[in-house]
Amino acid sequence: MKALCYNGPRDVRYESIPDAKLEDDRDVLVRMEACSICGSDLHMYHGIALGEATHFCIGHEAVGEVVETGSAVRRLRSGDRVMLSGAVGCGACVPCLSGQIARCENGGMRVYGLGRGLQGCQAEAIRVPVGDFNTAVIPDGVSVEQALLLTDSLATAWFGCRNADIHPGDTVAVIGLGPIGLMAVECALVLGASRIFAVDPIMERRAIATQLGATALVPDTALEQIRDATGGRMARSAVEAVGADATVRLALDVVGKQGTVSVIGVNKSKHFNFPIGELLPRGLTFRIGACSVQCDWPELVPLLQQGRLRPERFFTHRLPLSAGSEAYRLFDERRDGVLKTVLLPQGR
Amino acid sequence: MKALCYNGPRDVRYESIPDAKLEDDRDVLVRMEACSICGSDLHMYHGIALGEATHFCIGHEAVGEVVETGSAVRRLRSGDRVMLSGAVGCGACVPCLSGQIARCENGGMRVYGLGRGLQGCQAEAIRVPVGDFNTAVIPDGVSVEQALLLTDSLATAWFGCRNADIHPGDTVAVIGLGPIGLMAVECALVLGASRIFAVDPIMERRAIATQLGATALVPDTALEQIRDATGGRMARSAVEAVGADATVRLALDVVGKQGTVSVIGVNKSKHFNFPIGELLPRGLTFRIGACSVQCDWPELVPLLQQGRLRPERFFTHRLPLSAGSEAYRLFDERRDGVLKTVLLPQGR
Amino acid sequence: MKALCYNGPRDVRYESIPDAKLEDDRDVLVRMEACSICGSDLHMYHGIALGEATHFCIGHEAVGEVVETGSAVRRLRSGDRVMLSGAVGCGACVPCLSGQIARCENGGMRVYGLGRGLQGCQAEAIRVPVGDFNTAVIPDGVSVEQALLLTDSLATAWFGCRNADIHPGDTVAVIGLGPIGLMAVECALVLGASRIFAVDPIMERRAIATQLGATALVPDTALEQIRDATGGRMARSAVEAVGADATVRLALDVVGKQGTVSVIGVNKSKHFNFPIGELLPRGLTFRIGACSVQCDWPELVPLLQQGRLRPERFFTHRLPLSAGSEAYRLFDERRDGVLKTVLLPQGR
Amino acid sequence: MKALCYNGPRDVRYESIPDAKLEDDRDVLVRMEACSICGSDLHMYHGIALGEATHFCIGHEAVGEVVETGSAVRRLRSGDRVMLSGAVGCGACVPCLSGQIARCENGGMRVYGLGRGLQGCQAEAIRVPVGDFNTAVIPDGVSVEQALLLTDSLATAWFGCRNADIHPGDTVAVIGLGPIGLMAVECALVLGASRIFAVDPIMERRAIATQLGATALVPDTALEQIRDATGGRMARSAVEAVGADATVRLALDVVGKQGTVSVIGVNKSKHFNFPIGELLPRGLTFRIGACSVQCDWPELVPLLQQGRLRPERFFTHRLPLSAGSEAYRLFDERRDGVLKTVLLPQGR
Repeated sequence: MKALCYNGPRDVRYESIPDAKLEDDRDVLVRMEACSICGSDLHMYHGIALGEATHFCIGHEAVGEVVETGSAVRRLRSGDRVMLSGAVGCGACVPCLSGQIARCENGGMRVYGLGRGLQGCQAEAIRVPVGDFNTAVIPDGVSVEQALLLTDSLATAWFGCRNADIHPGDTVAVIGLGPIGLMAVECALVLGASRIFAVDPIMERRAIATQLGATALVPDTALEQIRDATGGRMARSAVEAVGADATVRLALDVVGKQGTVSVIGVNKSKHFNFPIGELLPRGLTFRIGACSVQCDWPELVPLLQQGRLRPERFFTHRLPLSAGSEAYRLFDERRDGVLKTVLLPQGR
Repeated sequence: MKALCYNGPRDVRYESIPDAKLEDDRDVLVRMEACSICGSDLHMYHGIALGEATHFCIGHEAVGEVVETGSAVRRLRSGDRVMLSGAVGCGACVPCLSGQIARCENGGMRVYGLGRGLQGCQAEAIRVPVGDFNTAVIPDGVSVEQALLLTDSLATAWFGCRNADIHPGDTVAVIGLGPIGLMAVECALVLGASRIFAVDPIMERRAIATQLGATALVPDTALEQIRDATGGRMARSAVEAVGADATVRLALDVVGKQGTVSVIGVNKSKHFNFPIGELLPRGLTFRIGACSVQCDWPELVPLLQQGRLRPERFFTHRLPLSAGSEAYRLFDERRDGVLKTVLLPQGR
Repeated sequence: MKALCYNGPRDVRYESIPDAKLEDDRDVLVRMEACSICGSDLHMYHGIALGEATHFCIGHEAVGEVVETGSAVRRLRSGDRVMLSGAVGCGACVPCLSGQIARCENGGMRVYGLGRGLQGCQAEAIRVPVGDFNTAVIPDGVSVEQALLLTDSLATAWFGCRNADIHPGDTVAVIGLGPIGLMAVECALVLGASRIFAVDPIMERRAIATQLGATALVPDTALEQIRDATGGRMARSAVEAVGADATVRLALDVVGKQGTVSVIGVNKSKHFNFPIGELLPRGLTFRIGACSVQCDWPELVPLLQQGRLRPERFFTHRLPLSAGSEAYRLFDERRDGVLKTVLLPQGR
Repeated sequence: MKALCYNGPRDVRYESIPDAKLEDDRDVLVRMEACSICGSDLHMYHGIALGEATHFCIGHEAVGEVVETGSAVRRLRSGDRVMLSGAVGCGACVPCLSGQIARCENGGMRVYGLGRGLQGCQAEAIRVPVGDFNTAVIPDGVSVEQALLLTDSLATAWFGCRNADIHPGDTVAVIGLGPIGLMAVECALVLGASRIFAVDPIMERRAIATQLGATALVPDTALEQIRDATGGRMARSAVEAVGADATVRLALDVVGKQGTVSVIGVNKSKHFNFPIGELLPRGLTFRIGACSVQCDWPELVPLLQQGRLRPERFFTHRLPLSAGSEAYRLFDERRDGVLKTVLLPQGR
């Protein structure tokens, strides 16, 4: 079958790989209807944080049709249109059964397309382990593009806001306005934030944040402007959605006393310089982690169905899967106002 | 000075009473700028739940100007424009100092205008006990009418929604669409509700709820319609804002398994018929209580300032205080689309 | 096989029933090692709240050995020694997967031995639906009798205390000192209660509560004694573990302002007289429900393993299953200091 | 009057300073009954984190008798025996009034004896700002030495455990077994921890932790032993009560996936090396801050009164205030099994 494969930094190709097939009686086989590119795919595109492996299929945001089910699959049937959780759990251990896939005791939370482990989803088909647990039928009233966002990006933005301890009436800073940062702006509003400072160097992205109701700021002057606008109280919490040390540091600086910083940007630093001595008198909660995606679906699905979240507006490009190489280049170079790209297998 | 006084059921008169004056060195004296009529004032108007006392000034929603301060007052000065909390605490006991005025250990939470205790605020002036604790300067960006709502109605609606354990994405029923019920619809949205069923027999009120984004229902068919619309799951929580046994019962019926019912309607029943045997297998949290008003201001003020709550739209009438008798009649008879009425002392 | 069957009020017999067997490929068959009698079994023994059905096997607290597994069972193998959750869920719906079996969307939470549905466990063997979800291997360091308590009684006591919103330092009343009430005393201490008032008419039970560290009271004077001992503040919360209207009423009366009442006693009243008019000014949270048993195991198991909870001390009698008829009579008549009885199949 | 003054690193002297006196009408003047030395006093003793100032009175843990009150003081009277909160707030801003003194908007949370600001309490008398807010009468059933612990150490240990998100049944690591670390072991048990790993290089301190019910470990092998004992799951949370980078790092290492680290040790590092890249896949909550002391009293006082916390056992030495110089040396050199020392003014 055809798939997008990583062949080294900035070298993603549309090529043939062996057909996906069932390996366990809880697996389901899904024929891809649409997949999308996540900001964290760019880290991989740059060759960051990968081992030596190459020639593997990438991607972890996908929706498709179930075409085959293992004998122990209960909830799904062939023909079901499903969304795939970007977080893959065993579905049987105590943490998985209590909504904490990130603590899965059977191999830990797994992710598609990060190497030679689970095949990525930017392909014509994919094997989903423990399909009953790691997918859900696309709910009525949720579009394919909304479902794509549920598989990772929107859930991560939501998780980042949850981790930020946002209370109704709070002032929140969102650092980084890529698709996840923009969705974090939307999510913070649903959680009751009264005022959102949205920080990014790119003017177009700031303009979108302004339309969402945020106060847009450039990084250089954000600290001072937040200080002025809050009478020195600063933000109550900050969501960092970039993955650079400088933006984590900015997040630490823009929150006030007893504030919370939530990091969701993928950051590979081994030596982040944490100003612990300043923070003791000030008080801080600092949270970082990866999202147990499907656990947030019960909250997010009705918010999408009722139009309280409309993140599908952040899709800017729709391309055939065979043009994946170009799609990655476009995203990497931030050309053409790209935010989020859908990839469609041939014939879709 | 002039004031509105209760002289028996349905007999409210504009008449002279002795001038308000300081009685303790923490008191402040406030000259009224505007006051308003609360749904619970109607209970009194009907003579419900009062003792034998008559000829006392009523009302508990007011904003005004500080004109005199006791020697131990710290935060306020003459000339400050303040809003008066409808909940009056000692401001010195542990519950008051931890935001639970409703548990005040020095006399309990007190309310203006319920008898011969604290004078009501529908008057030209009022004495405020422990002024530093029981008022706040009207914040920048908050209008007089918004401030009036902060003194009780909006805080009560917020409290009712908080008590309903509303989570993002939840389906919520609001029973009763008087001003507080309508504000509860607004508050439930800020708390992340995805879908709100708003129930009232009056068409005009349902129309307003629909504009706010709710699904409006009449009481007779509400139960069945909520069952249909939710596929039998029912609402996750319900806010009862009427004060009748039938509406409390409806609230119990419209919530699903493990749901929460929050009662804020003033209900004087001694023998509400609670179907405890049905509730054990179903699971229920039932909450009832009165709001520690000023404790909710830190959340509510920024939501008003940033336009996330716009309850000032529910003011329908503005009358001179001297026309208070007519204002009560109008409200009692629900004439003229009345929701919420401002009363203005002469010369304002 | 042999089993205890309900044949009408106060008529429980040890008799032959058809052998238990697998009915679904997720089922497991368990050979009983030990089972026990729960307070709620007494309701059934009295014929309360049952339909017309008779001649069915009763009981819902059991541990045993897996002797056969359906083809879709993953976690369990023959030979595993397991404890059976008294709450049976589908294990596949969203509520089950997020720890809220009580909201199970496939048939609701089911219970063994309540009629002709799921066979009871006071038998030589039992079929367990969705064995992977509704049992767990008895953890190292947990005895058989501790495991029996995990299947329902201890989990219910824990749930009742959780529902009571117990905070560290709180004063808590436990109404009713049967086995579950006594376990609630233990659980409240683990949750940080500083002071526990334990109320029961039976002297022996009060003596045990006193040994646990509680202040034991008789029902008649409990209200007044709690008032005196707390300087009028009353208890912060109450756990009702009886199931009678009078004890629910006592629970409402002994909590102070903004208190919480948690009802776990099985109460079949259709018309409990709820003093809603008194409660509005006072403030109250009232919770009632049934426990999603296995969801509490991750908290309870380490507390048992480390000796922080020692509820096994409440087992007073160990009898053969064949003497079940006598065991029920003994429990019903509260003879011989009986609290909790283990029933052992022949040869055990 | 006589007082202990800081005159440079390791140079604390008992000498004369001007008499304490009222400066504001909300102040109270307290004659010292007893004071104690806190671990954070040692930082000062070492000259760490101070400016250039010398010749000021130190100490922030004290109980005494009110001897004079400003005219605006309401709750206190001369003759009251009070405990002084180690955290001094304005008592009038919104954060202070909602229990978050650490966010005080009028000058921030202040501390006694850190320089030429608020005089320390290791003296014959002290001025207490806003006495009604920053002290409380010693409750019945609380001893003088228990009250001393409430003024800072016990509240800080409690705060550290609260910040660690301890749930019932959790495995918790406490790093550092000075008085606050040992109290954290006690507090973690009250919060329901099932198992506590207590880490310190000093054998005597480990022995005390063992008596409290903890598993005592030496720092060098703690990581490996916790891994073995938990089957690789590691601790759920860790409380760091030392103030060194190595112990913060150990705390980060001993918690498992999605764990929480709470830092209460005073740490002045500007460049703590935070391994952010490792933490993203693992998930972490990291909290640091200083305790709003008096806000924890409503929880702690009943726990002391009922004997659920018995931290008074950690007082090992009682010396006259005039021997303060020797007391500091003893504590600094950790001689004579010293944990916590009471200093008593002449004549007490």
